Amino acid sequence: MQNDEDQSEKTKKILTEFGKMLVQDIFSEKNPSFNTPVRSRSNVMFDNSKGLLKLGDSEETHSFINTSQSKSFMQTVAIAAKCYSFIKQNQHATIRDLFYQLKYSLGEEIDENIFNEQSESNPLIEDLEVALKLRREQLNLNANRKGVLVGDIRIIDKFGDETVEIDGSKTGRSGWAIPSDVDNDIKFEDIHADYVLVVEKDALWYRLNEDKFWKKENAIIISPMGQAARGTRRLIRKLSDKGLPVYVFNDCDAWGWYIYWTIKTGSINLAYISEDVATPSAKFIGVTMSDLEKYPFLKNLTMRTNDMDIKKAQEMLNYPWINRYPEWVKELKLVLSMKKKLEQNSLEGPKLSFVDEYINDKINKKDFLP
Amino acid sequence: MQNDEDQSEKTKKILTEFGKMLVQDIFSEKNPSFNTPVRSRSNVMFDNSKGLLKLGDSEETHSFINTSQSKSFMQTVAIAAKCYSFIKQNQHATIRDLFYQLKYSLGEEIDENIFNEQSESNPLIEDLEVALKLRREQLNLNANRKGVLVGDIRIIDKFGDETVEIDGSKTGRSGWAIPSDVDNDIKFEDIHADYVLVVEKDALWYRLNEDKFWKKENAIIISPMGQAARGTRRLIRKLSDKGLPVYVFNDCDAWGWYIYWTIKTGSINLAYISEDVATPSAKFIGVTMSDLEKYPFLKNLTMRTNDMDIKKAQEMLNYPWINRYPEWVKELKLVLSMKKKLEQNSLEGPKLSFVDEYINDKINKKDFLP
Repeated sequence: MQNDEDQSEKTKKILTEFGKMLVQDIFSEKNPSFNTPVRSRSNVMFDNSKGLLKLGDSEETHSFINTSQSKSFMQTVAIAAKCYSFIKQNQHATIRDLFYQLKYSLGEEIDENIFNEQSESNPLIEDLEVALKLRREQLNLNANRKGVLVGDIRIIDKFGDETVEIDGSKTGRSGWAIPSDVDNDIKFEDIHADYVLVVEKDALWYRLNEDKFWKKENAIIISPMGQAARGTRRLIRKLSDKGLPVYVFNDCDAWGWYIYWTIKTGSINLAYISEDVATPSAKFIGVTMSDLEKYPFLKNLTMRTNDMDIKKAQEMLNYPWINRYPEWVKELKLVLSMKKKLEQNSLEGPKLSFVDEYINDKINKKDFLP
Repeated sequence: MQNDEDQSEKTKKILTEFGKMLVQDIFSEKNPSFNTPVRSRSNVMFDNSKGLLKLGDSEETHSFINTSQSKSFMQTVAIAAKCYSFIKQNQHATIRDLFYQLKYSLGEEIDENIFNEQSESNPLIEDLEVALKLRREQLNLNANRKGVLVGDIRIIDKFGDETVEIDGSKTGRSGWAIPSDVDNDIKFEDIHADYVLVVEKDALWYRLNEDKFWKKENAIIISPMGQAARGTRRLIRKLSDKGLPVYVFNDCDAWGWYIYWTIKTGSINLAYISEDVATPSAKFIGVTMSDLEKYPFLKNLTMRTNDMDIKKAQEMLNYPWINRYPEWVKELKLVLSMKKKLEQNSLEGPKLSFVDEYINDKINKKDFLP
């Protein structure tokens, strides 16, 4: 990891170069333009060697002198300029805040707004991310945060002019709330753990925290609290980069699978940042349909699948990055034939702490789905 | 505040008394029964002297020997027994976990489940709360948690066999994540603050945290991150009970108002716990429609109201606990006539940190809505 000042300086330089390039075009009497990879689904592909979704080679050119593009071109440059000022002032904003700053900046005298709706500015932020090969967090734009961590890890958070140290093993019932940006001015040190356990639901995370599972089993336990936010995905990836195995423990349903594959390969929508946020080495420890044979009590605790579960299972069977694994094909076909699903909470049926035994069992037997 | 052991012992005693009462009915050859206040809207009323919503005097009797009630009676008793065992084992569960434990406990041999759907068990948990005059958190049932805090306050969290101390002023960019239960085995001490500021959106909370507003202005800043979870409402109330004024800073729209009134008076749905979670002394510092006159730049940053905003404004004008305040009547009528709304982020238009000046201005001038 670069330290923050390096990152800020680097980002400012990239933004400056971007501006200079456009100015140069103007002075050379050329049409100011920049290229970005196409972000539509047709240009999303699976990188076999890296094990993640990424954008293909299709590019598109954004030009100023083009009646259908000049407005969005102007808007993109305005976003770049505003992000530059955020970094210079060492302030962070959300994409909503950015929208208001730009809406304001044109003032009341001009009848035309830079943006009328945030839906106009959001895709242009993505354009800028791919054009400059920067993530929005590096442009001081915070994404929504969600997710929590507990474990034996030291977090050094340089926040403005103060640095705080957080001991991840002394966060009590609350855990440490994972922020949007886990790269700039923040470091993760003294990690004493054998693996990272990602648990879909906060309730199950709480259960494992209450049982001090992280301490007994030497694990870092993260809950994305549902679908993983960008910051949480990035943190999981960073911990994986430090050599820790990552095990994901989710519901056996459409959401659980989606959350897993998003962590592992990245998502189609955010394929342009997979290289930074996906964790291809992640393994799925359950809950699986095959668990019904291993833990017969679960048979009484299944639920009926709904249309979304069935649609998702069928979709997944068509994704080449999923159907290359016979284990997943078997699992998804079981869902389609049985029309049943299982929540991770169902493991708490016999006793609340059964979930601890289940996870240990899976990890000790290396009983994972890839 | 009671300490936790006291609370656990007290709760166990209440549950035991509840069971004994039913057993006594059986031995006396009486129909086992218990009474609860009616929780339907018709029995929700505003308590003028306390300034909060509460249940009225209508009661209903739940009897075992009654064809329409015997199943739910059995279910309620099963919930009570399960909660007793949670407390005894010093373990917490969610209402979802409780559902699975009860679904499991009848086993596969009996064709009838105690519960088929969680929608059956949820209202019975509420029955039990009102029947026993306990909140579910006291029954070791965790509710969803959401919300974050920063400020000069010491949190002493006795979590299982370990006690951690968290310094609320040393939580960096993340803040302290507010748990579901802020009463049992947790204490809030050494509070150095002049007031509590509640900020609807996490993004604005981050802004104020990044500016160290809490430090400069000697405030505790809480974001419920949208609608306030039970734990966050309870914490706001507890801080208010310690003598701190509570100021709420929300969007000027249907959600913002709803979040405010829920914090202040409690909600209609959870009227049975208002006495513990409502903060009648809370004040609304903005954003208000009247701000359009005080801060003219906002005129360019309004948005059109949608149907929900209009419906909510009309509803609020009909609530006697709201329309008794001429300031709110004026505000809501402005919304209805202008058909405009304002987000708190709009205050960041001129510069990101303008929001700091706005809040200071409002507090110094005591420019609140009641």
